[in-house]
Amino acid sequence: MHVVVPYAADTPKTRLEPALDAGERRRLARTMLEDVIRAIRATDREPTVLATGAIQSPLGASVTVDDRPLTEAVNAVLGDRLPEGPVAIVMADLALATPDALGRLFDASGDVVVAPGRGVGTNAIVVRHPSFRVDYHGGSFVDHEAAARECGAAFNTVDSRRLGTDIDEPADLVEAFVHGPGRTPDLLRTFGFELDREKGRVSIRRSGEGVDVADRSSSF
Amino acid sequence: MHVVVPYAADTPKTRLEPALDAGERRRLARTMLEDVIRAIRATDREPTVLATGAIQSPLGASVTVDDRPLTEAVNAVLGDRLPEGPVAIVMADLALATPDALGRLFDASGDVVVAPGRGVGTNAIVVRHPSFRVDYHGGSFVDHEAAARECGAAFNTVDSRRLGTDIDEPADLVEAFVHGPGRTPDLLRTFGFELDREKGRVSIRRSGEGVDVADRSSSF
Repeated sequence: MHVVVPYAADTPKTRLEPALDAGERRRLARTMLEDVIRAIRATDREPTVLATGAIQSPLGASVTVDDRPLTEAVNAVLGDRLPEGPVAIVMADLALATPDALGRLFDASGDVVVAPGRGVGTNAIVVRHPSFRVDYHGGSFVDHEAAARECGAAFNTVDSRRLGTDIDEPADLVEAFVHGPGRTPDLLRTFGFELDREKGRVSIRRSGEGVDVADRSSSF
Repeated sequence: MHVVVPYAADTPKTRLEPALDAGERRRLARTMLEDVIRAIRATDREPTVLATGAIQSPLGASVTVDDRPLTEAVNAVLGDRLPEGPVAIVMADLALATPDALGRLFDASGDVVVAPGRGVGTNAIVVRHPSFRVDYHGGSFVDHEAAARECGAAFNTVDSRRLGTDIDEPADLVEAFVHGPGRTPDLLRTFGFELDREKGRVSIRRSGEGVDVADRSSSF
């Protein structure tokens, strides 16, 4: 299986701007990418990074540069690689991904297998049907299900919170902080974040800062 | 295994107030409860509803009334039932729960097994250790892990987005609408919701209304 990890090389993770400065966002994006690469390698597969611009190779992984939008760049890979065998696309910000969760995705049956993300997104996908193409607009889960049906591909999903959690907004940082299996939690600690537990909610915040980076409260 | 579904009988789902009126919130809570009961029954287990007040029996299930706060009411059940065998606590708003996801939880090894929710919550838990007790304050996942360690119980988690998604806030409704396996999606359609797809995001909104109930955008 050819495993691709798309990566925004230039200005990654802009939606984390309320919580992190540009340098921190770059370091976080890079650390999450490396965590994802390690998790993929632990399933005995070697990922290729599909970057929007030149980057230093993360952990010695192959890097392909394609500055087109995500959908076009991924579909170019599908066109090239599907004739040879299955292709998996795993987003670079899945800081909770473990080898077990990725193994369940890679091993699931189906011509198109999606690990859904919040907001009806597609956080990871395995494609085994030669004519299936991705479309990463809003609500891509629904699009991908419809596209699979249209080309006669058997559609399946994998039920994983680890693959379903992308680190996109400040409120997501606590997920990486608590549940991340790689080095992302340590990086967040280096940035000065700590668990902040007030009545009825949990988030992370910088030591000494009063500013709460999470606006999502927990009900339990 | 004794399976308990806690249920707020009186004013359920108040955080959905921006999207639904009080009557709709009650109907939604009831429909989600019934979906959860059906999913549990499909694993060949018979749940008991632990309600904060008298309710009409949902789908003929046993109802125990306990008007104490969630943590106390659940711990009373654990005290009564753990001597006889394992106890599972499954929240009533897990509208995405399937028999498969619940089966993975019920069958997972460990003295304490948690299905984590967003915001470091505990959406479902299986307890097999006689002295473990729950604490449903904010950040309960972290508390439950620590409490398991303290009483020498083997702690485990189950990686399920279906169990990890509780329907709590307006932005969660789209998850139930798209991924719900039971009757909740139909109820939301009855309320007039439909998929709303604008550039880069997906949510649901009422037909004819301009008001968008989701403030969470999707990155893909």
